[in-house]
Amino acid sequence: MGHVSLVGAGPGDPGLLTRTAIARLRAADFVLYDALVDDRALRYARRARRFSVGKRAGRHSMTQATIQALMIRSARRGRRVVRLKGGDPFVFGRGGEEALALQHAGIPYDVVPGISSAISAPALAGIPVTHRGVASAFLVVSGHEEKAFASAIAQLQPNGVTLVVLMGLGRAAAIAGRLIDRGWSRGTPAAVIVNASRPEQQVWRGTLAGLATDVVAMDAGGAGTIVIGDVVAIGLREVGIRNLEVGMCTRIPTSRF
Amino acid sequence: MGHVSLVGAGPGDPGLLTRTAIARLRAADFVLYDALVDDRALRYARRARRFSVGKRAGRHSMTQATIQALMIRSARRGRRVVRLKGGDPFVFGRGGEEALALQHAGIPYDVVPGISSAISAPALAGIPVTHRGVASAFLVVSGHEEKAFASAIAQLQPNGVTLVVLMGLGRAAAIAGRLIDRGWSRGTPAAVIVNASRPEQQVWRGTLAGLATDVVAMDAGGAGTIVIGDVVAIGLREVGIRNLEVGMCTRIPTSRF
Repeated sequence: MGHVSLVGAGPGDPGLLTRTAIARLRAADFVLYDALVDDRALRYARRARRFSVGKRAGRHSMTQATIQALMIRSARRGRRVVRLKGGDPFVFGRGGEEALALQHAGIPYDVVPGISSAISAPALAGIPVTHRGVASAFLVVSGHEEKAFASAIAQLQPNGVTLVVLMGLGRAAAIAGRLIDRGWSRGTPAAVIVNASRPEQQVWRGTLAGLATDVVAMDAGGAGTIVIGDVVAIGLREVGIRNLEVGMCTRIPTSRF
Repeated sequence: MGHVSLVGAGPGDPGLLTRTAIARLRAADFVLYDALVDDRALRYARRARRFSVGKRAGRHSMTQATIQALMIRSARRGRRVVRLKGGDPFVFGRGGEEALALQHAGIPYDVVPGISSAISAPALAGIPVTHRGVASAFLVVSGHEEKAFASAIAQLQPNGVTLVVLMGLGRAAAIAGRLIDRGWSRGTPAAVIVNASRPEQQVWRGTLAGLATDVVAMDAGGAGTIVIGDVVAIGLREVGIRNLEVGMCTRIPTSRF
């Protein structure tokens, strides 16, 4: 019997992979990865067959049932399978469904948490999701389905906590409009981070009203994180990924991995 | 001029450190770490002076101002400083305040996101914070101050989203009572994860009503994460850290780090 690891690949920069994620990739025979996973993470899986399941903002090239069946069949054939997901496997990644399927099929598996964009994308843009005296809680919600988003937002008083919307970039205007309709202030600070941690990271800052109109100009093909709340405006500049790639990182050359 | 890195150490298991976190620790001259940071992470910082600032559930042995002054002074003396925090530096870690102090002092710094217990502690206990058809959003809040907790909870409809409470273990009964008073169902599934990802990980599962009475028996000295919501009861068994430490991880022996 093989084994399945549900592994979080983090937001993109391979320096944000965990040691255990790298170990799982190195040992893998078979890697099933989502479209948002950075190619540089896959380089660790040299021995493995690598297979894109094409999941991107909720659209799949392969059904969830097929992905699960493929993992189970490969593990039964003795393969060490890595199911590699952008960010963390249990944050809107359907990792829970996959874990349940593995448990029901009696396949040994584990979960390797990853750096979620929900927290790291704002951080790399200079936005802490919590900040003393500004925000003592944050809500993370998916933006890609109108109904699920509306239902989550209905649970929340306007402007009470930091709001982080994942997979909402293509619907930014609708999301902003929905929040304004719910009573959120049009002047609430808002930011959009695209391709967080990657060399092409882009950050837009403005207000909820601006989110309804301006953001369409950003590259909507990338992974986008929307942050709404006063933490956007505490005055911290973008930190960005360049600082991660250079400087003190030179002791671990990429070639070693 | 030196440099400061605000680095997240993750929940405890050194396998959940990122590659960049390890690189920063290896290169560091001076490490200022919180009490909840696992000793095994500090072993990477062989060259460095290591200094505990004793922060634990909001109590400090050193004031925030002193910590910041120490980082700034060391960087001005040319030191490569790592400010190492449990979990992620921008989730209730006062990382935002420290980053602002560094920015104002003109000190070069960066932020290395870490694996937050908010997501990983539930995950390692077999609880996905989101799950299709069960929870489409999660709120993360600190439990250690009654006032901040009450104010955050007041923003939320009862039983609407998954609730993750960090640093609330010592106040679990008060937290459960406050939620029940706010209209949360007494039968809402709840879990407490102590020492997530460490060999001594413990998981308690029950209901909100049980949280008010049972959990006091758990070791309250450890780092605790409380999860409240239907995701606790989707039927996934505890995954735990043993799976991380054994099996496919053998290709990266600890001695290499």
